[in-house]
Amino acid sequence: MSAPTRGYTATKDQLQKRLARIEGQVRGVSKMVEDDRYCIDVLTQVAAIQAALDKVALGLLDQHARHCVVEGHGEGTPEELTHELMGAVGRLMRRG
Amino acid sequence: MSAPTRGYTATKDQLQKRLARIEGQVRGVSKMVEDDRYCIDVLTQVAAIQAALDKVALGLLDQHARHCVVEGHGEGTPEELTHELMGAVGRLMRRG
Amino acid sequence: MSAPTRGYTATKDQLQKRLARIEGQVRGVSKMVEDDRYCIDVLTQVAAIQAALDKVALGLLDQHARHCVVEGHGEGTPEELTHELMGAVGRLMRRG
Amino acid sequence: MSAPTRGYTATKDQLQKRLARIEGQVRGVSKMVEDDRYCIDVLTQVAAIQAALDKVALGLLDQHARHCVVEGHGEGTPEELTHELMGAVGRLMRRG
Repeated sequence: MSAPTRGYTATKDQLQKRLARIEGQVRGVSKMVEDDRYCIDVLTQVAAIQAALDKVALGLLDQHARHCVVEGHGEGTPEELTHELMGAVGRLMRRG
Repeated sequence: MSAPTRGYTATKDQLQKRLARIEGQVRGVSKMVEDDRYCIDVLTQVAAIQAALDKVALGLLDQHARHCVVEGHGEGTPEELTHELMGAVGRLMRRG
Repeated sequence: MSAPTRGYTATKDQLQKRLARIEGQVRGVSKMVEDDRYCIDVLTQVAAIQAALDKVALGLLDQHARHCVVEGHGEGTPEELTHELMGAVGRLMRRG
Repeated sequence: MSAPTRGYTATKDQLQKRLARIEGQVRGVSKMVEDDRYCIDVLTQVAAIQAALDKVALGLLDQHARHCVVEGHGEGTPEELTHELMGAVGRLMRRG
């Protein structure tokens, strides 16, 4: 049985590279804490991770909107899919 | 020579546990992508990571404000330290 | 010549009522400042206005996505419209 | 009886001018809706208002931190005041 095609399927490698880099950034923050680095410098790194995650999220949203909502490869009516997409946007705007 | 004391020094272990958990969450998102999971579910997880990072950031801000700004263990005048703190808040609000 | 139909056309009255309420909230914050109210209470009101604007923005995004992108009433290819929509989401996530 | 001195007291005029400008921006969005302007342009203006409110909030936070928390003009222990300040930062980060 073949795997389902997702909005991100075409750029899966690139997405996983980005996530690996973000994982490394989180590990880097842990190292900064280990080394007793200055609080404000730690916070600047946390904000950088947030920005990187926002980029990942925007990319996923974009590809999902194109592939699943507009091109109709998603399951559900356009109304349902748009509603679901906006739920995701709302969670990202309120952060969780 | 002793390590500098930071706002987070007293709760360093707890902070590193949180960061390890966030690292695991990022790895989990990568696994979801590997498994071709539904875009919206991936996005929900990304929003959860942002929320977890927000909590880490708020904790760091709080401890820094108490230890370095209010109690005067930071280097600089209160005016400088407050300005620096607000720079960090601004970066977190705009995310990076 | 007739007015263009927008995503929000069907709910224009409701949208304008919300905006009028937000305008009143901003005026309320100005009144709080006039009355020398406590900083933290002023900030709580500012956060409430942000939340109300987020709701307006999500509503507009949702209706635009449905009307212009999915149903094809927008000008441009689906690819262009989705890209434009995601630009708007990004500006809202980064706030401006 | 004299009015209480707040963090923003010294720059009250400037703060009220900013709020009046934001009120005008909200009215401007209502006018855009009245004129059936393009959804994405309306959303860009909403994001601009959010950015302006963020600036007001950061200014208030900064002045409150300086005046009430650091200089000790606030009511409460430094610990209580810092906790309260971080509550406000959290509400602004999650927007409401």
